[in-house]
Amino acid sequence: MANTDYSRRPAKSQAAINGRVGPAIILIKPQLAENIGMVARSMLNCGLTDLRMVNPRDGWPNDGALAPSAGAERVLEQAQVFTTTAQAVADLQLVYATTTRHRDMTKDVKTPRSAATEMRVFSNDGSRVGIIFGRESRGLDNDDVALADAIVSVPLNPAFSSLNLAQAVLLVCYEWFIAADQTDASTLAIPKHTRAANKNEMVALFEHLEKELTECGFLRVEEKRPIMVRNLRNIFQRANLTEQEVRTLRGVITGLVSGNGKN
Amino acid sequence: MANTDYSRRPAKSQAAINGRVGPAIILIKPQLAENIGMVARSMLNCGLTDLRMVNPRDGWPNDGALAPSAGAERVLEQAQVFTTTAQAVADLQLVYATTTRHRDMTKDVKTPRSAATEMRVFSNDGSRVGIIFGRESRGLDNDDVALADAIVSVPLNPAFSSLNLAQAVLLVCYEWFIAADQTDASTLAIPKHTRAANKNEMVALFEHLEKELTECGFLRVEEKRPIMVRNLRNIFQRANLTEQEVRTLRGVITGLVSGNGKN
Repeated sequence: MANTDYSRRPAKSQAAINGRVGPAIILIKPQLAENIGMVARSMLNCGLTDLRMVNPRDGWPNDGALAPSAGAERVLEQAQVFTTTAQAVADLQLVYATTTRHRDMTKDVKTPRSAATEMRVFSNDGSRVGIIFGRESRGLDNDDVALADAIVSVPLNPAFSSLNLAQAVLLVCYEWFIAADQTDASTLAIPKHTRAANKNEMVALFEHLEKELTECGFLRVEEKRPIMVRNLRNIFQRANLTEQEVRTLRGVITGLVSGNGKN
Repeated sequence: MANTDYSRRPAKSQAAINGRVGPAIILIKPQLAENIGMVARSMLNCGLTDLRMVNPRDGWPNDGALAPSAGAERVLEQAQVFTTTAQAVADLQLVYATTTRHRDMTKDVKTPRSAATEMRVFSNDGSRVGIIFGRESRGLDNDDVALADAIVSVPLNPAFSSLNLAQAVLLVCYEWFIAADQTDASTLAIPKHTRAANKNEMVALFEHLEKELTECGFLRVEEKRPIMVRNLRNIFQRANLTEQEVRTLRGVITGLVSGNGKN
């Protein structure tokens, strides 16, 4: 107990404040309303709603952000404005500063993926987390970076790494979202009216095809027949056929055999 | 050998055609030049240069794409224009169609991360791969999807999943880039003129602090002393100090002891 630092782990009840969800996105002196709107859209794409700004150049609220938000008005309406970075992060326990520029500082530098995992751990424990982004023209001041626990830096083409503000927000928020996403990496989508073919149906298809290919003479060279049969079977195995598609293909074979397209 | 399908694995020399790098990004009937420019920027951010378009609405080339590309002119200049999707993907061995809309098709559906891994495998074997994106207003036609090997679908907030075209391109290209990126997930950046403190330096700092805290009476309660010392040592252990920072902190201790800020 004595060696445990609980200072950054408040009660879980503090996790969602005023209905705002997930990490706070904090824009320091954002310049373009269009970018603020696109940031709101990117946030909501990833399920985040806690937008904060420090001294937006053209004031707030700003109608210019509305159309680029593409329907994320809720995020804009809830946005909070502060006059200092310290105030904007005051209630947070874990803060990242996004930057690609090299800083002459001793500081943890994390990828968005690594930061997302850490943010999930803190959030699950009831901590409030946030990520600060600098103004479009010159990024974050060093004093803002010094208020953060760590730097998050997006690995990109080193010869062309400058991201638009909303793109940077999107990538960081996307990693946050994906870190807890349960989507199957790869799945076969099948229409509701059918199902994957079973092996009985597959073998019946193979035997139908092989019978017709034997009769028409395609498999007449006996020593090549086993290889040919295996190759053909593998083609259709790879296709992950549905039961309906097996019936379609058997109709295709019958149609081709009949010679005039009719069964 | 007989059961191996080599049809999709050409010679490695075909991997880079005309100097274009990585997967082709294929925009079907893109409407806004601004989006085409932002797509070029997102591609180059992730090291990709093979941009293809099928019937861009306002013709090509289009100067409106230049400024939004933010310096990715090279991608725009090399862009190829086709009149059919089939022509645009003719030289590719593996093609993904991006869509979030449910289609009544039997088709593999992959996350961008899963697709990126597969694209890397194919590319490393010398195959050409590509990803097709539909027009801004209504996405891909089903006939375009049927030309693809699989669907790639970005997991996002199901209540607000519509991405701007360039944002969708960015997320897919980002996963491609990250799939082969070697960046450490988390690293401590240290300025060149110093290095991480070694344990000899750390213990000397601890002993310096503990000696002064003993003398000033802070550690006077003998039974609490071991816990207090461990807690203090853990605070500074967690800070991952550099050798220079250890010297700074020892100066801080000396300064505080002297009472007037001078050594």
